[in-house]
Amino acid sequence: MTKTVALLSAVARAHIEPLLPDWVEPRSYHTTQELFDLAPAAEIGWFDTYKKPDMAEAVRLATRLKWLNSIYAGVDGMPLQLMAERGVKFTNGAGINALTIAEYAVMAMLIMAKGYRDVMQAAQERTWLRDSPGKMELAGSKALILGRGAIGELIEERLRPFGVEVVSVRRTPSPDTLTPDQWRARLGGFDWVIIAVPATPETEHMIGAAEFAAMKPTACILNFARGTVIDQDALVSALQSGSIGQAWLDVTTPEPLPADHILWNLPNAHISMHLSGRAQDKMFARAVARFVENLARFKAGQELTPLVNLALGY
Amino acid sequence: MTKTVALLSAVARAHIEPLLPDWVEPRSYHTTQELFDLAPAAEIGWFDTYKKPDMAEAVRLATRLKWLNSIYAGVDGMPLQLMAERGVKFTNGAGINALTIAEYAVMAMLIMAKGYRDVMQAAQERTWLRDSPGKMELAGSKALILGRGAIGELIEERLRPFGVEVVSVRRTPSPDTLTPDQWRARLGGFDWVIIAVPATPETEHMIGAAEFAAMKPTACILNFARGTVIDQDALVSALQSGSIGQAWLDVTTPEPLPADHILWNLPNAHISMHLSGRAQDKMFARAVARFVENLARFKAGQELTPLVNLALGY
Repeated sequence: MTKTVALLSAVARAHIEPLLPDWVEPRSYHTTQELFDLAPAAEIGWFDTYKKPDMAEAVRLATRLKWLNSIYAGVDGMPLQLMAERGVKFTNGAGINALTIAEYAVMAMLIMAKGYRDVMQAAQERTWLRDSPGKMELAGSKALILGRGAIGELIEERLRPFGVEVVSVRRTPSPDTLTPDQWRARLGGFDWVIIAVPATPETEHMIGAAEFAAMKPTACILNFARGTVIDQDALVSALQSGSIGQAWLDVTTPEPLPADHILWNLPNAHISMHLSGRAQDKMFARAVARFVENLARFKAGQELTPLVNLALGY
Repeated sequence: MTKTVALLSAVARAHIEPLLPDWVEPRSYHTTQELFDLAPAAEIGWFDTYKKPDMAEAVRLATRLKWLNSIYAGVDGMPLQLMAERGVKFTNGAGINALTIAEYAVMAMLIMAKGYRDVMQAAQERTWLRDSPGKMELAGSKALILGRGAIGELIEERLRPFGVEVVSVRRTPSPDTLTPDQWRARLGGFDWVIIAVPATPETEHMIGAAEFAAMKPTACILNFARGTVIDQDALVSALQSGSIGQAWLDVTTPEPLPADHILWNLPNAHISMHLSGRAQDKMFARAVARFVENLARFKAGQELTPLVNLALGY
């Protein structure tokens, strides 16, 4: 039997190998150079690297590749057009982190509402505060969620029992939603604007000076998508002038944010360092389980899931 | 018409006076001495003071008092027996803060789960963390709620959509609850132990060395009741030895906690300075609305609500 060559990082291989069906021949690499050397033989690839350009280069070298898997949800930086031309299937990590990110988003809203960063700082100085630095309640507030993937849905489920009125954006009009051409005109009605859209050319800088100007001066914006979705210079101005209340940035441009970046200085900016999806210990186990399920589908000639739409970029 | 004398703090009077029916004669005080001087004439009293002994003394002096109102939920320190002997009705702030405290409790759980204090500290130092210091998910965890007042119910409502299995303690056995003689034997099964009981002689030190020893080493305990409900020395030992994971203390013994208290030093203790109920700007408005409703009931000879059970102490 001719085996199918699957190229995995050495760490991933150690976890996956006991679960591999016998038609798969696993190969693995320790260094980026080894990855590049082995890529041309790979028919199945799961070679996530911290540096996206390296991962993209490995894909370019992998001329026999039929299926690329990734633990990451974001596919920006990948050579999607080339993959489409070569007929490569691409499964990503969409949804694997969604639950953890949704929990993080609710934490972020509560920390901003209660001014909890100031409480923590007072505790460091052993100062007993007599009153709460933040006095917002989630109850009775209004949230706009941009992006209706798994993350947006899980956030919505968690916020409703807090008495938050949640509005999301959908193409099909319905009572609880706004259409893509409606939400900008309604921005002034929300206490929370939560971004969970995929990073595509269409979402780049979708929030800029005009959107910040339209928001309530007390509004909080939260970004769990990609830094590029927000015009970051416009955000800094909005935070400095008080045209919005606070910003929670799980993602920034660039990452890591340089130590001398002005965002670190702003008392109404919260930087959570792209950790929202990492605050769990089940991510890798979830990704492995999904990969093994997809191996069976691959062998049977069935559709892999979740499949990235290479034209739309998510 | 003989008017009924209501003694209010000067600040409260300013807000309430426009809403007072004409059978009420408001009187007010600025200082504790004025409060003591005016107390003997009061038939209705709403004289919350930051120092509970002063409030208790005012009640003792108020020999004509028929109804005492308070914005606070806790009634410990009040001369309840004397009030019972004199036939004084006592309405407290039960439920006024419950919503805000429930929001705070969920925030507290999420901050502990994600290790967010360490993220905040790294942000102060402009250090970009590569991984999350906390990796717990609320999803799939188990919480025990001690105390089934408004706070406990609101916490439960908010936790269920996170996928937290919530068990509370009730006298009547049912599938999702434990009886008061069952929960101690089951302590080892919970990731969260959330205290929201009233402060009474029966709840004093209800959590001590034996209870901490029975908990999971990763378990987090949260106290939104009164400091005295926990044996604080036993808690310090449990946190130091790692026999529990973390503690979130909205309440401590004493309050304020002295600057040299060991609890400030422990990396797994979080002190939120009795702010959980104060993280809102509607508390006073809610209390005033309730007081005005009760004035109508008082006049009509109807039952006031929520009425403190002077024998049980909550």
